[in-house]
Amino acid sequence: MTTAPLSRRDLDFLLYEWLDVTTLTGRKRFAEHSKETFDAVLDLSADMAVKHFAPHNKKADANEPHMLPDGSVEMIPEVAEALRVFGEAGLIAGQFDEALGGMQLPAVVARASLAWFQAANAGTSAYPFLTIGNANLLVAHGSQEQIDTYVRPMLEGRFFGTMCLSEPQAGSSLADITTRAVPRGDGTYRLTGTKMWISGGDHELTENIVHLVLAKVPGAPAGVKGISLFVVPKRLVNADGSTGERNDVTLVGLNHKMGNRGTTNTLLNFGDGTHTPGGEPGAVGYLVGEENKGLSYMFHMMNEARIGVGFVAISLGYAGYLQSVDYAATRTQGRAADDKDPTSAPVPINRHADVRRMLLAQKAYVEGALALGLYCAKLVDDQETAEGEAATRAGLLLDTLTPIVKSWPSQWCLEANSLAIQVHGGYGYTRDYDVEQFYRDNRLNPIHEGTHGIQGLDLLGRKVIMQGGAGLAVLAEAVGATIARAGSVGGPAAEYASQLGAVLDRVVATTGRLWGTGDPAVALANSSAYLEAFGHMVIAWMWLEQVLAADGRSGDFYEGKRAAARYFFRYELPKTGPQLDLLDSLDRTLLDVDPAWF
Amino acid sequence: MTTAPLSRRDLDFLLYEWLDVTTLTGRKRFAEHSKETFDAVLDLSADMAVKHFAPHNKKADANEPHMLPDGSVEMIPEVAEALRVFGEAGLIAGQFDEALGGMQLPAVVARASLAWFQAANAGTSAYPFLTIGNANLLVAHGSQEQIDTYVRPMLEGRFFGTMCLSEPQAGSSLADITTRAVPRGDGTYRLTGTKMWISGGDHELTENIVHLVLAKVPGAPAGVKGISLFVVPKRLVNADGSTGERNDVTLVGLNHKMGNRGTTNTLLNFGDGTHTPGGEPGAVGYLVGEENKGLSYMFHMMNEARIGVGFVAISLGYAGYLQSVDYAATRTQGRAADDKDPTSAPVPINRHADVRRMLLAQKAYVEGALALGLYCAKLVDDQETAEGEAATRAGLLLDTLTPIVKSWPSQWCLEANSLAIQVHGGYGYTRDYDVEQFYRDNRLNPIHEGTHGIQGLDLLGRKVIMQGGAGLAVLAEAVGATIARAGSVGGPAAEYASQLGAVLDRVVATTGRLWGTGDPAVALANSSAYLEAFGHMVIAWMWLEQVLAADGRSGDFYEGKRAAARYFFRYELPKTGPQLDLLDSLDRTLLDVDPAWF
Repeated sequence: MTTAPLSRRDLDFLLYEWLDVTTLTGRKRFAEHSKETFDAVLDLSADMAVKHFAPHNKKADANEPHMLPDGSVEMIPEVAEALRVFGEAGLIAGQFDEALGGMQLPAVVARASLAWFQAANAGTSAYPFLTIGNANLLVAHGSQEQIDTYVRPMLEGRFFGTMCLSEPQAGSSLADITTRAVPRGDGTYRLTGTKMWISGGDHELTENIVHLVLAKVPGAPAGVKGISLFVVPKRLVNADGSTGERNDVTLVGLNHKMGNRGTTNTLLNFGDGTHTPGGEPGAVGYLVGEENKGLSYMFHMMNEARIGVGFVAISLGYAGYLQSVDYAATRTQGRAADDKDPTSAPVPINRHADVRRMLLAQKAYVEGALALGLYCAKLVDDQETAEGEAATRAGLLLDTLTPIVKSWPSQWCLEANSLAIQVHGGYGYTRDYDVEQFYRDNRLNPIHEGTHGIQGLDLLGRKVIMQGGAGLAVLAEAVGATIARAGSVGGPAAEYASQLGAVLDRVVATTGRLWGTGDPAVALANSSAYLEAFGHMVIAWMWLEQVLAADGRSGDFYEGKRAAARYFFRYELPKTGPQLDLLDSLDRTLLDVDPAWF
Repeated sequence: MTTAPLSRRDLDFLLYEWLDVTTLTGRKRFAEHSKETFDAVLDLSADMAVKHFAPHNKKADANEPHMLPDGSVEMIPEVAEALRVFGEAGLIAGQFDEALGGMQLPAVVARASLAWFQAANAGTSAYPFLTIGNANLLVAHGSQEQIDTYVRPMLEGRFFGTMCLSEPQAGSSLADITTRAVPRGDGTYRLTGTKMWISGGDHELTENIVHLVLAKVPGAPAGVKGISLFVVPKRLVNADGSTGERNDVTLVGLNHKMGNRGTTNTLLNFGDGTHTPGGEPGAVGYLVGEENKGLSYMFHMMNEARIGVGFVAISLGYAGYLQSVDYAATRTQGRAADDKDPTSAPVPINRHADVRRMLLAQKAYVEGALALGLYCAKLVDDQETAEGEAATRAGLLLDTLTPIVKSWPSQWCLEANSLAIQVHGGYGYTRDYDVEQFYRDNRLNPIHEGTHGIQGLDLLGRKVIMQGGAGLAVLAEAVGATIARAGSVGGPAAEYASQLGAVLDRVVATTGRLWGTGDPAVALANSSAYLEAFGHMVIAWMWLEQVLAADGRSGDFYEGKRAAARYFFRYELPKTGPQLDLLDSLDRTLLDVDPAWF
């Protein structure tokens, strides 16, 4: 891969010219930082991603991890080496407190840094990112002892972390998990059960693996109200911090996937007696926080993971876009529509209108999605470090946008990857080029961390109606503020503002109409259409923001921003019309269908 | 794979209840046939596809063909065995004249038969289907000697055929091919050049391979007007029909693809001197028809191949749909939206509205596309066997619909495969299930036999304006006739008819508006949007036809047809609104963009 996986120019625009992230250094937590320290992290990330992550992306795909007869996992050695370099650079600890050995980077800068690795090699990058999410949860909800025992080694790269939610019979429905945790009276629990789809669930990359496991204690309430959260290390940790005997956590099998093959994805048994820690079967677990509050703690990690999934989707989309831009500039084929001379030289394919469509669409998708991803990451910073009301408002806006930042890139940056293949023609369908792998890797993202359908239910069934509609109100206010600014700028920005305002009004009205039915089944029947229309509105907002940030500036980069915005407003935003019409009609097609008719 | 790859019930409905194909037996060519002979072919096909093709579909994907050091191709033995059974059953010759050993089956029945094999195993099925297309071309344009020498052994399954158009530097642009054919004065030519993307271009499945090769003779006009067509066998054929010495055609390499791995796809050298037939280097070729008319002959095969690509896309979509229907009926997860009791039993996922959306969408896509595929196949029969004006009209309608029957299934049955993965959740992303392979296999179809963009240019730049707009007029007349019938039926059919009529009027008006510009660059700038809107209109027509064919009949099957039609008219057809708005605006975004802005 000679094409860069991500655009530093675009990151600079989004971080500095648009989001103005250097102002964050005025806050106490980030006071030691400056544009220079942010730039240094971004430079380091770009360099390391290109040197250590990108080169084995294809090899890891072609040589997926496999189980050896002794139950251990073998993978290509480049993965461990890349992660060693990554850990030694301190990037796992980037966002964490200095007291924990971290850099106290703003989330928005940390996300931009990590996006380089995700774009260069989604499979390898997953291990530290799961670890960061795990460590963040323990910092927020674990005891000091748990932080010292598990978080510190994770931030040093000695341990990696996982999240163990799903079971073979319970994927989207956590209410139905059956893993049991029995208290032993000594402060520990013993867990028994089976967890499915556990990414990074086993490997030999680190000396230990810290599983965060959802389970039910005997007598707990039915459903999600009876779920507790446990730390279950692969190997018990001795009092001096050294790694001790094997816990009763056993790798049953690796899932063999269409893409994202570099990341092990596992079926794990807890407490099947393969190992006998302390002389007894049963996986030793340590309660995080209080019993029966596990799901609320886990949501902390899940929301972060959802933004993270969005970033993987964005990064893969971006990498494919840049490769197809380069390909279209050098590959020659055919002639201009008005050139009827067969002896004239073929032109680069980026002269053809339909190839330009495929490039502009990709640009509109991946740059629009990256803007949203960074905007949400900055909301994380505001939620944690802004003053009073601003922090509350940021949290509410972030909650509302989380289903969008997860689902929209998963849908449209996957579509971008499909267009990247199409730009490459037959070559794009071969494994000699990278784009087919991006497409396979990216197809995971609408599935994990809450499927596309689950995000729709979360948005329409929870987020836009929470706190009496405050989530939707705060978003409408934010979009409205952009519209007002754009209106005063005039020109295309004012035109886009008017178009966006009309869609925003419709979304608000439609939301009211749906919930005005008083019938959740009818209101939620077309929640995926709602999610998609809402998502297009949000990305149109992101494009209007970018147009305003580019206002008055000239040159190819800014012209490109304006062209992509124009594409989004003319080709994409109008797609919301039929979706909102459908929602307004309270269509019952999906409710009325009898499964016997399929 | 225990789920059937295709639905015999649906085929019976489409062939007998809707298209009434038994009436074809009133024509001389099909006089020996009856519903019983058609049924026997369909029964045999279903049985053979399930027994001999489906079982090695996954194995062929996991063990793709590879080149041995001696330059030959090794593949799993099940492929040759399945194709032996297929050939022995006489199915390669199904549509051909009895005088050639064929069954004189109508194209519409032959396509339905072949769809079983495509749905069961797209990779293996490609070999005979390329062979059929090749043989059809030679029957139409070859000499009697060429027919006897090459077509007969192909119909017996002793030889397989290919089409060799593309070159590494010339994919979509055939004007730029550089393969040369030099006449030797003895009726033969010697060819030199390199052909790329040749499916079935080499293998050891048959004793010979018949390449149909586009090349230019010295002094030929520049561009497509100087292209001639040649038969170039892998091995020369002796006067007695036996296979003789090796021709100078050499396998340079196999392309390694994302999907469709069972079909070899090759880079071939013609005349590189690896072999010396008759003691000299140069690939021996035999001119088909006249010099410089090669492209028009090849279009015969290409148009057939385009319908064939549509059928592969349809079949893969259909197989995935049926698997996801079965999965959704047995997999349990979660509860109804209004069931707040966490102790109630989980329900099959086909009770959830969003899963129903994904199943209904797939049904609307694959059954709508299958209807169009069979409709077009029947047009082939009408073009060849109807009387006078009806034959001309069928040919014109078929020409107009060819870009749609190729592109629409390639886009939407691929989307169906994506939905089939989504219905399966994480399981669908694993190679333990079949749907991820269908998705990978199907991604080829928007690329080969004319990319999606090329189909848009063909439709808007050629088909709808040919003969003074006769292509569009005959389609409008056919759609109008359906609308008129539906109007008199009343109920939902009349509602759909009114909706479809409005879209048809818009498409006709938009076509006039685009060409009214007098500027081909502006007219064609958004030809992909035109293709997609036009395609949705055509599929809506196919659904209205099915609603009419189901009118007055009750039972799950017919209710399913009505539900899928309702889905298409409420969820899909409205998508054409923004596309036609865009076209009507004569948008110049794609023309105005400067490639430096990407």
